[in-house]
Amino acid sequence: MSVTAAQGFTAAGIAAGIKDSGNPDLALVVNNGPRLAAAGVFTSNRVKAAPVVWSEQVVKGGMVSAVVLNSGGANACTGPLGFQDTHATAERVAEVLGQNAGEIAVASTGLIGLRLPMDKLLPGITRAAAELSAHGGEKAAIAIKTTDSVHKTAVVEKDGWTVGGMAKGAGMLAPGLATMLVVLTTDADLDAGTLDTALRAATRTTFDRADSDGCMSTNDTVLLLASGASGTVPAYDDFAAAVEQVCADLARQLIGDAEGASKDIKVEVINAATEDDAVEVGRSIARNNLLKCAIHGEDPNWGRVLSAIGTTAAAFEPDRLNVAINGVWVCKDGSVGEDRDLVDMRYREVVITADLNAGDAAATIWTNDLTADYVHENSAYSS
Amino acid sequence: MSVTAAQGFTAAGIAAGIKDSGNPDLALVVNNGPRLAAAGVFTSNRVKAAPVVWSEQVVKGGMVSAVVLNSGGANACTGPLGFQDTHATAERVAEVLGQNAGEIAVASTGLIGLRLPMDKLLPGITRAAAELSAHGGEKAAIAIKTTDSVHKTAVVEKDGWTVGGMAKGAGMLAPGLATMLVVLTTDADLDAGTLDTALRAATRTTFDRADSDGCMSTNDTVLLLASGASGTVPAYDDFAAAVEQVCADLARQLIGDAEGASKDIKVEVINAATEDDAVEVGRSIARNNLLKCAIHGEDPNWGRVLSAIGTTAAAFEPDRLNVAINGVWVCKDGSVGEDRDLVDMRYREVVITADLNAGDAAATIWTNDLTADYVHENSAYSS
Repeated sequence: MSVTAAQGFTAAGIAAGIKDSGNPDLALVVNNGPRLAAAGVFTSNRVKAAPVVWSEQVVKGGMVSAVVLNSGGANACTGPLGFQDTHATAERVAEVLGQNAGEIAVASTGLIGLRLPMDKLLPGITRAAAELSAHGGEKAAIAIKTTDSVHKTAVVEKDGWTVGGMAKGAGMLAPGLATMLVVLTTDADLDAGTLDTALRAATRTTFDRADSDGCMSTNDTVLLLASGASGTVPAYDDFAAAVEQVCADLARQLIGDAEGASKDIKVEVINAATEDDAVEVGRSIARNNLLKCAIHGEDPNWGRVLSAIGTTAAAFEPDRLNVAINGVWVCKDGSVGEDRDLVDMRYREVVITADLNAGDAAATIWTNDLTADYVHENSAYSS
Repeated sequence: MSVTAAQGFTAAGIAAGIKDSGNPDLALVVNNGPRLAAAGVFTSNRVKAAPVVWSEQVVKGGMVSAVVLNSGGANACTGPLGFQDTHATAERVAEVLGQNAGEIAVASTGLIGLRLPMDKLLPGITRAAAELSAHGGEKAAIAIKTTDSVHKTAVVEKDGWTVGGMAKGAGMLAPGLATMLVVLTTDADLDAGTLDTALRAATRTTFDRADSDGCMSTNDTVLLLASGASGTVPAYDDFAAAVEQVCADLARQLIGDAEGASKDIKVEVINAATEDDAVEVGRSIARNNLLKCAIHGEDPNWGRVLSAIGTTAAAFEPDRLNVAINGVWVCKDGSVGEDRDLVDMRYREVVITADLNAGDAAATIWTNDLTADYVHENSAYSS
């Protein structure tokens, strides 16, 4: 159901010929109102793709009537001509839908440093518009895949209103968002400011804490559009909780489909002095290549967890650190704890718990193991 | 010739039985004076191995009469008992040599979280002492290997005085030093303060800028011992240059032997606003897993260089960035530059030049590609 689960939205996904493979590569999501409220969160990478620069401006206005997304090319590092391509894309969507280009968001994903084939993309928009449907959410989700092995959607239905969404992302997954495009829709009747508050709160604890490979993309985009079509104004807390639930679901799906991964690793940092400390320690553990290799080898190598913690500025005493792997406290008081042979690592999900013994704050970061398949997939991506 | 190239030093390397393989695992380096001046630089990881805690105290006194080094176990995260093991090791060396335990430096390398087999290590010290020789430098260098495929030594001979050294390190190589043990010796007649100044200056631009896999060890140790046996007091600048030359040589050997690597990558950052900016950008590029995979695949994927630069706080404008790979400026003004097909990446050494166009500072960071062999080696290390 994806982005068309909420009332007031239509979507389409087609193969416009942007990808050489002939796979679907162009998606269109249209908000049919009555409201056109929107919010967005974008990559914090200072090298931003043209569609990010464009869409940041669009979202500032608080109104988005449609989103056009393409896979098969990131349109990043393409200079002024690349920005013109994004502008022309929005203009074409506006023309076809009879809308204002300043309210059309654009998102792109794929290889950096290549111009988009506009001779294929622009006619594709016309074709996609002709296929817009209240059941088009799945096709839209399929059309934004790059190296994703499956498309990702999530829906939360509440009393009279719904939040749904789609996501893509499999590599270059890191904080300040993953290499991902996400479109969330709701038929709740809320203004842009409320959407913005709820979206920022949700991404902070979900997408921002999915860190598959430490690499931050130039194109990350998360949009939340509200049509108001349900006529319902939910309480803010209920709405924020639903948005967070959809984001958490999609973020978990991204980690579960990360390039080449064989393990999904939940890094729980507990008893930190502050939440910032917990996040810093969690990220340091999640980005430690040696540890990620060890987890791949089903080796509960807790020494690598401690060496990762030791590189942070978080409050802790080395001889008061405890570490559990899948519930077995293999490190106690900074030294050898329970027998490492008790750790069962056969399953895809692995939980690393780092107890800093320095307070009562906590945070969870999700990451993946590092595998030969990751190396293979990313050493051949543009060749 | 290693640590015995300079006059006044003897060394030995033996198989004490610490390693199950039966390979050499214990080295002893003795300064026979007349001077016993010393300086040291240690890991900045806050989780420090017992021998690091011990040797930091020893070096503070400015005098080191001997260094005992073992491979086969890091003696890190081993608690108070592990510290007692280090202490007992120094005591045994002092006893055998007729020296003061407070002037015996200890260094260990191997797996974290395991106690050392003291029943093998202590008798080994007695045997090593019996084999001390002015020609023992090579054997000492061999005995400190872990996953190193070759032992590493370097010597610079000047007019009447010499600086020589040995190093080990192949994984967990990162800033604030690599996972490495390094012992440098000189027969120049210099005091501990001068040694300290020269050693810190040299490590800052050599070992601190070798970043193979972003992982900082708990055991990194670099020691510089002076015997004064040449009777020569070199000019400071000449001495500092010789120490830097030996460190640079050893650092380059560490990168060249990094676990699983197939490419040595020199990341040159030029035209930065400050040297700190250049180092920050260089490290960000050197730690980008996606880029490291691309280099492994001989893919001049400059978009990944830009996305890495974009995550830093360095001064730059995205549309004024230039990137060359092996001399071909594949990115100009933040966009597509020369034809990427012109880039020849067949050789082991790859040079990435990032021009920030923001000033006249520069720095070079060395790293390696990310390979399936790295994953394999590090997923099976402790199993």
